Amino acid sequence: MKKYISFFLLFIVTPLSILSAQKTLRTLLSPGKQTAVTVGLNKTGEPFYKITYQGKIAVDWSRLGFLTKNFDLRDGFTLQSAKTATHDETWKPVWGEVAQIRDHYNELEYALRDEAGRRMIIRFRAYDEGAGFRYEFPQQDAMKNVSITDELTEFQMTADHTAWWIPGDYDSNEHVYTTCPISQIDNERYNREYAIATQHIVKMKNVQTPITMKTASGMHLSIAEAALADFGALHLESDVKNLKFKAFLIPSADSTVKSINSAPFHAPWRAVLLSKDAAGILESKLILNLNEPCKIEDVSWIKPQKYVGVWWEMHVGLATWDMEATQDMMAATGREVKGRHGANTGNVKRYIDFAAKYGFDGVLVEGWNVGWKDWFGKWKDEVFDFAKPYPDFDIEELSRYAREKGVRIIAHHETSGAVTSYERQMDAAYAFMNKYGQNSVKTGYVGKIIPRGEWHDGQWMNNHYLRVAERTAKNRIMVDMHEPVRPSGWHRTWPNWLASEAARGQEFNAWSSGNPPEHECILPFTRILGGPMDYTPGIFETRMSAYDPKKTEVVHTTVAKQLALYVTLYSPLQMAADLPENYEKRPDVFQFIRDVPVDWDDTRVLNAAVGDHITIARRQKGAQNWFLGSITDENARNFTVKLDFLPAGKTYEATIYADGPGAHWKDNPYPVSISKRTVRKGDVLDLQLAAGGGCAIAFMLK
Amino acid sequence: MKKYISFFLLFIVTPLSILSAQKTLRTLLSPGKQTAVTVGLNKTGEPFYKITYQGKIAVDWSRLGFLTKNFDLRDGFTLQSAKTATHDETWKPVWGEVAQIRDHYNELEYALRDEAGRRMIIRFRAYDEGAGFRYEFPQQDAMKNVSITDELTEFQMTADHTAWWIPGDYDSNEHVYTTCPISQIDNERYNREYAIATQHIVKMKNVQTPITMKTASGMHLSIAEAALADFGALHLESDVKNLKFKAFLIPSADSTVKSINSAPFHAPWRAVLLSKDAAGILESKLILNLNEPCKIEDVSWIKPQKYVGVWWEMHVGLATWDMEATQDMMAATGREVKGRHGANTGNVKRYIDFAAKYGFDGVLVEGWNVGWKDWFGKWKDEVFDFAKPYPDFDIEELSRYAREKGVRIIAHHETSGAVTSYERQMDAAYAFMNKYGQNSVKTGYVGKIIPRGEWHDGQWMNNHYLRVAERTAKNRIMVDMHEPVRPSGWHRTWPNWLASEAARGQEFNAWSSGNPPEHECILPFTRILGGPMDYTPGIFETRMSAYDPKKTEVVHTTVAKQLALYVTLYSPLQMAADLPENYEKRPDVFQFIRDVPVDWDDTRVLNAAVGDHITIARRQKGAQNWFLGSITDENARNFTVKLDFLPAGKTYEATIYADGPGAHWKDNPYPVSISKRTVRKGDVLDLQLAAGGGCAIAFMLK
Repeated sequence: MKKYISFFLLFIVTPLSILSAQKTLRTLLSPGKQTAVTVGLNKTGEPFYKITYQGKIAVDWSRLGFLTKNFDLRDGFTLQSAKTATHDETWKPVWGEVAQIRDHYNELEYALRDEAGRRMIIRFRAYDEGAGFRYEFPQQDAMKNVSITDELTEFQMTADHTAWWIPGDYDSNEHVYTTCPISQIDNERYNREYAIATQHIVKMKNVQTPITMKTASGMHLSIAEAALADFGALHLESDVKNLKFKAFLIPSADSTVKSINSAPFHAPWRAVLLSKDAAGILESKLILNLNEPCKIEDVSWIKPQKYVGVWWEMHVGLATWDMEATQDMMAATGREVKGRHGANTGNVKRYIDFAAKYGFDGVLVEGWNVGWKDWFGKWKDEVFDFAKPYPDFDIEELSRYAREKGVRIIAHHETSGAVTSYERQMDAAYAFMNKYGQNSVKTGYVGKIIPRGEWHDGQWMNNHYLRVAERTAKNRIMVDMHEPVRPSGWHRTWPNWLASEAARGQEFNAWSSGNPPEHECILPFTRILGGPMDYTPGIFETRMSAYDPKKTEVVHTTVAKQLALYVTLYSPLQMAADLPENYEKRPDVFQFIRDVPVDWDDTRVLNAAVGDHITIARRQKGAQNWFLGSITDENARNFTVKLDFLPAGKTYEATIYADGPGAHWKDNPYPVSISKRTVRKGDVLDLQLAAGGGCAIAFMLK
Repeated sequence: MKKYISFFLLFIVTPLSILSAQKTLRTLLSPGKQTAVTVGLNKTGEPFYKITYQGKIAVDWSRLGFLTKNFDLRDGFTLQSAKTATHDETWKPVWGEVAQIRDHYNELEYALRDEAGRRMIIRFRAYDEGAGFRYEFPQQDAMKNVSITDELTEFQMTADHTAWWIPGDYDSNEHVYTTCPISQIDNERYNREYAIATQHIVKMKNVQTPITMKTASGMHLSIAEAALADFGALHLESDVKNLKFKAFLIPSADSTVKSINSAPFHAPWRAVLLSKDAAGILESKLILNLNEPCKIEDVSWIKPQKYVGVWWEMHVGLATWDMEATQDMMAATGREVKGRHGANTGNVKRYIDFAAKYGFDGVLVEGWNVGWKDWFGKWKDEVFDFAKPYPDFDIEELSRYAREKGVRIIAHHETSGAVTSYERQMDAAYAFMNKYGQNSVKTGYVGKIIPRGEWHDGQWMNNHYLRVAERTAKNRIMVDMHEPVRPSGWHRTWPNWLASEAARGQEFNAWSSGNPPEHECILPFTRILGGPMDYTPGIFETRMSAYDPKKTEVVHTTVAKQLALYVTLYSPLQMAADLPENYEKRPDVFQFIRDVPVDWDDTRVLNAAVGDHITIARRQKGAQNWFLGSITDENARNFTVKLDFLPAGKTYEATIYADGPGAHWKDNPYPVSISKRTVRKGDVLDLQLAAGGGCAIAFMLK
């Protein structure tokens, strides 16, 4: 697929005075010439690069390089070679938003050598939808062990763009997004108003990647990372005066060092996603393409799935994780605990019955294993036994019962951050799962990490997540990670890694100030660019006062919007998160959740504005049915949608789940108007979304 | 066995003014009234204790207590109760120096409560051979999670005793001992003259426990630790002006914290071994008695053993660990490498043949598994695969061959400090061993620890060593740990943990300034008090110039002393460390190594002076044969030994391996005079030990 091309790409004349050594300048154009990457060395041999998109500068001249404990990789470089290549390949994901993905780029291998003979290659890939580059360190005598102390990569913005971002927290991504100009980036409020239980925000101008921006002319760009491995996660230091971002790597437990590597090695890809509009960012496959192909030979056992589970009842305070009945989410938030162990045999059977009746694949059971009494906030190394159920969780009987009903129990491995303990038990835990016919596991990393001093987003943990993906794959187990680093496209390589949390999920609505209505209108443009999120939508009873009259928390949504999220928040793993009894009260509305699939052959973004609204249509995998989701932020909106995506000459029955009369996330979340229409390609639908509302449509081929 | 006794022990009148609250004073006498421990609170509620031995003060009034991150456990205490008990039990170790051990003590449970209601119990045990105490923190609402920042325990000496010590290194015990008065303790030279590859000495007055001292009147005392678990190891800060030691706990990766515990918990035992002479320290069973009984039900598979192995040839530069042939010890020390992979099938067969021919139980093979190329000094997380042999190590064939010859291959699991990697692989590694019939493993921890920031002697690693002991036991595997924390008597509880290195071993003689002749005359009084050491004696070719004319290193010993070490350095696991060809050159001398057992029913210390000389006689387990070892430091010595230990009425053939004419460790190490005599109880032998020499005698029942 890859062949080296012999012609030199054209120089683009640059006005920048720092680049005097013109003979080192190289420009790489994307196949359709949308994107151009220019790279060169300045007079002192420092590498710089620039990215233009559709003739406009997206990233102006920006520094490249590293500092290490024993030497700098900053300047004194000479250009050894600059090889170009082109690549055009179409590959099929095991599951996804589309049936196949084209990976089409031109590549420049920019090989440098410094005065001490150290060799560093910067590999650039120009796509029509953006650019990626990564640093490579070949095997060499001049560089063996490298303790990286800083990455110098910069991203020079051209103006004070609007940015959507969360703070550069070493330990968590579970933050609400801020929307503001680059010049106003400041994390201070996150340590004040929005503090969460495990967070570590020390640099007040640091933000996480992906950060997504919109220029005055409407260009959208997102700075992201792909294929993060053996490295601290990429955050960005914001130079709010000069409108520049600089790489900041999450440190290791040795706080003087960001990562420790041995040549040969390479850093993860740094990526800049580019689009003329918001929709293009949602459609980008750049991060996936920068990842390696699937490493699992037989993928027949990997199945997207919908599930229910013993989970939301703990968050709303009806049940506890621990059998001693002290540890529901209210205990963590310091409030009263009701005290019934959720994962008891009878209750789990109720969920299995429900799943079987309504066609769900799995039943997640949290709180099934011993250890929960000590799990929260203790920084203990030995907390859980992953092969020892509580005595009131009859695993033999439940395994038999689930098998009989055609439902899988989804295992839950909460580590409480004691990762060394989990790694010691992995082999035994997966053998235990296999023994009981469980083929999916939800892992959790709530709390400060052990190894002590390591961070959720540091090199050691980033390697851990990959180890879990690999070792679960070896055991034919699918995995859903909660509280890991945000994903960077590894689901291409390890498609058994179905989803991650790694963002502020639904549960915050149950016991905190919650997620503002715009939250789900930002996630797909930021966090979800790197991979699916297990957001757990589908809450029908949005008011916590239903469980306890003293409570005031609400989910910031209408019920119709909860349905639409199954389409707009892409994931091959979707929970119907509410309690069975709440679904059984509204079977007409519930029907959409039963119908909506979790795997797709095609996806069309019909409209999108970051933080405001998203409307997406998707075609069911291996079928002709289409599903549409449309969501809005706190503002009511009307959209006219033309059904151009439907195939010509076919007739569909559309079931439309719209916000009902007077619906409003704050005062009146419940009304859902359900209507049916017969439609064809080219028909037009008017969607009326309430404040904090949404609309979901199932188009079933007649 | 334990019954509470109802009478109050006598008060000992104390002149110390700090103790004004006389009603809190309690004195605990040992069963034979040799040792008295007095404890009390001063006016501000601070606990203090004092230990007297045979009427003399051993430890004068000394503080007790802790500091934690959130509160102090230093003062404001009131005495809640002071219960006493007595205990007299005789137990049989699975293996050891004697067939049975008496555990006879009086106990005081001194229960305190501070002003915030926090409860702390100090449990004292008075033995005739010393005292132990430990802090206990029962379950309580006032104290849940405890982040210990400092232990306040002091040991106030009464004069400027002579002390034998090594520096308070967080990462290593592989130091030569210093002999000096307390007032002159200073670690400075260890960072200057004697630096080793992995060491971390930051406090210039800190020493490790056990530290052994001799008073002007000849009393010997050793401050030690027993049953170290879930805590940083106990070092001591030396107050050289006030002749006082204060507890210093090795920190965790969070450098502000020494250990993190949750009530209920207890600290390890702090122990003071007391004796009127040096011999009594060697005979003390105090540390073992403070440990818990054996936790392994079926111990039939645990066997003391003698072994040979592919090991010394790497240290002398004839072979390498890695198949790529770059990594013998010379590579680590920066010198030329010869380049033959030691663990190749043919060479291992040669060792198996040798072991089978001469009756050894095992053959250790280092360098058998992939990963060695990267092992040294890289601080890498993924180095070794413990289930993947090098291609030139034919494990199928070698396993078959060893089984046929009745010899066991001893596995080697060098972690290079990457302990998280080892813990991930333990299950697989032990299953691999079981598959190939290996029932012993030597582990290694060379290098900086991963989890990064943790130390060899910190809480996390101390728990790791115990996990290895427990998990190997579960797999019926015996273990010999190299580079762990120094032992604290855990071999009582986990007798599959046969030995540890945890001190400066024989190999230093092969490629460094080595171990001075007094080294082996200090180890049994310090390091070995906590448990057996795999010192690897038996070097017949003591001059490294035999391998390379350019080399000047020598083992600081005579050959006769090498034999004597099998008796004086007690271990149930003893290596014959030299090369097979060196043994086959001197079959007459080698006969002693073939004869000497590694398990004993009785032990008699015939003479001893710390750092000067040791003469010990031991009776073979389950037999009437006796073996005697006598060693000296750099001074030649003559001893007259009366054979009172032999049973009356029996006749023995004594084979005496003495330093030959003109023997001297420096100039003339090789002469060994072998003579035979018929002896009986009461006979007298004159032993003539050369400088750096020794004498070994086998008494075989006729």
